[in-house]
Amino acid sequence: MIRFERRLTEVRRKMGEQGIDALFLAPSGDTEYLTGFRRQRPNATESHRFADIFYGVLVTRDIALVLAPYMAMSFVEEQVKGKPWIQEVVELPEGIEIPDVAVETFRRLGLTRARVGVPKFTFGMTLVTLQGLFPEMTFANTEPFLAPMRAIKDEEELAIMQRAAEVVDETYAAVLKKLKVGMTEMEIAAEVDWQLVRHGAEGTSFVTGIMCRGAQGSGGVEETVSRAGQVTLQPGCVLAFDFGSVVDGYCNDFGRTVYVGEPAAKFRRIHDLVMGSQAAAMAAMKGGQITAGQADRVAREYLKQGGFTKEFFHRLGHGIGIDVHERPFLQELDNTLLQNNMTFTVEPSILIPDKCFIRVEDVVVVTSRGAESLNRTSREIVVVE
Amino acid sequence: MIRFERRLTEVRRKMGEQGIDALFLAPSGDTEYLTGFRRQRPNATESHRFADIFYGVLVTRDIALVLAPYMAMSFVEEQVKGKPWIQEVVELPEGIEIPDVAVETFRRLGLTRARVGVPKFTFGMTLVTLQGLFPEMTFANTEPFLAPMRAIKDEEELAIMQRAAEVVDETYAAVLKKLKVGMTEMEIAAEVDWQLVRHGAEGTSFVTGIMCRGAQGSGGVEETVSRAGQVTLQPGCVLAFDFGSVVDGYCNDFGRTVYVGEPAAKFRRIHDLVMGSQAAAMAAMKGGQITAGQADRVAREYLKQGGFTKEFFHRLGHGIGIDVHERPFLQELDNTLLQNNMTFTVEPSILIPDKCFIRVEDVVVVTSRGAESLNRTSREIVVVE
Repeated sequence: MIRFERRLTEVRRKMGEQGIDALFLAPSGDTEYLTGFRRQRPNATESHRFADIFYGVLVTRDIALVLAPYMAMSFVEEQVKGKPWIQEVVELPEGIEIPDVAVETFRRLGLTRARVGVPKFTFGMTLVTLQGLFPEMTFANTEPFLAPMRAIKDEEELAIMQRAAEVVDETYAAVLKKLKVGMTEMEIAAEVDWQLVRHGAEGTSFVTGIMCRGAQGSGGVEETVSRAGQVTLQPGCVLAFDFGSVVDGYCNDFGRTVYVGEPAAKFRRIHDLVMGSQAAAMAAMKGGQITAGQADRVAREYLKQGGFTKEFFHRLGHGIGIDVHERPFLQELDNTLLQNNMTFTVEPSILIPDKCFIRVEDVVVVTSRGAESLNRTSREIVVVE
Repeated sequence: MIRFERRLTEVRRKMGEQGIDALFLAPSGDTEYLTGFRRQRPNATESHRFADIFYGVLVTRDIALVLAPYMAMSFVEEQVKGKPWIQEVVELPEGIEIPDVAVETFRRLGLTRARVGVPKFTFGMTLVTLQGLFPEMTFANTEPFLAPMRAIKDEEELAIMQRAAEVVDETYAAVLKKLKVGMTEMEIAAEVDWQLVRHGAEGTSFVTGIMCRGAQGSGGVEETVSRAGQVTLQPGCVLAFDFGSVVDGYCNDFGRTVYVGEPAAKFRRIHDLVMGSQAAAMAAMKGGQITAGQADRVAREYLKQGGFTKEFFHRLGHGIGIDVHERPFLQELDNTLLQNNMTFTVEPSILIPDKCFIRVEDVVVVTSRGAESLNRTSREIVVVE
């Protein structure tokens, strides 16, 4: 648990350097990283607790305290147990959106004119409300100073991420055995989600995406509300998986491609190209020797040699850890130098609308010998009948 | 589809009255209500698309346009099809967080000094960024003028909500058949989520909560990250369900209590009390004749007569529709007069820590004869062996 105290010391030093008086951390990856205070899994539609615009951990140079809406109290009490670096819980009463005790807490801590760091995902209405209450308060994004700390994982974090990868590998093996002609994309996605929980995940790290193309494909990618639709598995289909686990608060994010019936030679060739481009990028991802943008270019160049350019339509990957997408990004404009113990997805793909979406994705750790995969599932062609 | 044009006309009239120049609607319930532009289901951890702080529908007095990050384009293109009330899509390029074209769009529409309505769930960093770009821009909460419009449902909305309720009733019947001694709360929750999809839901409307108490109960409520834990179903358990569907963009939210083995007389008495308090509140919920706070009091008074006060520890219910929690709230401080065609959950409960959590929840429609339930599942005692 000492790691949270170490991180708080480090972040307070940085706050001092940068003139940030306090962090107001709505439940988020930043909160989990700095204090170990977890988020609950998010609801699919908007939900409301009275005073929830004030829900979060307030970190000043001296103390950390939780502002807790009445309806969050039982969760908050569990979360602060055994965390002496969180010194106080302020309960906000039910039925009131802007309770006096919340306003008083900012006053008592001398924050009425403070510069306050907030995570990107803080409610907009939190800021509008604070600005109305304290016209001299200003706000800064926590990302510039927290993202670099979060990017490099310690051994404890890597061990948890290894387990998150194992849960995904086991889930995928179990799902492959359940595939049957006639299943819809949504049924396959529901099977993935169920197997994740059975294999020990807290749940998904993001909405499971299942795309079946080829036999009766439609056009784009991710075009539905649910990232999986009513297309059914049929002979001739190319089936693309994209899913991930959360285990003890850390994410995995994984992809493979499955063929229903023996794939055409053209698909075999594309499959090999995609796997080759991933391997080439991973070999090049040596700590201290390549930037994020250069890694993207290695994979892109490999696919270009094989004749594909615009068919690889997205970035090569993204940092991953407590959140599924963290900085830096393996994207051409990102000049961050890769460092050992950074963790990324490496996920090249080829999309040919109405025909196929062939992809691979693994979570890797940057080392001085190149990137090493935490996921162990084979990347060879898998054919189901 | 005419309903969206009608709503936009109405909201523009209100914007005029209240000096709001534009709405900047991050994908949210407000966006869905006014334009039919859907959200994708949310990821469980934070994810990132370049320029996603600008992702949303911008509604001025004259036009509606979508600011669309590159990686959201295939979804956006599907969503704007057949919606002539959305006049334009502005694609934001990949790799850049604050693209010139986003900034230019606000300039071109004359919004640099605008008063802009934003939903509560807009990213805080959206507002910080806009304020930095346009120091004279000010922000207002969309809720005061959108919530009253959203609260009263039209016949089309009620028909969809009836289907959302039917999917939940069918799901619950299917899950009851799968219950077995030894299942964990998380396995039961995963079964619920899978059956929701099988029965036609887009997915859950909020995180499924399963609580098993009595035989080997723990303390609180909602104390885990996942709203379901590793407690197993055993003879003597009292099992509380809390889950809901999304069907065609509308929510259901439902609860029942199941007993493993014949319940003690004390539990039977509490069960009858909880059901009685729900029925009493529903009978009193006549359009134009009672406030939200008074409805809460009817249920609370009924339980008090039975000897329970603090054991009913939360509000009686909440509005529901496109989002699972909408205004008004059946809470003692809410003085909103109930009107016909408002939809609510009515969800009294009794929590006795370590012993039982006995609850019921249905989605109801306010009529001049009282509240009528959309959910049809029996509220009688269910005993599984």
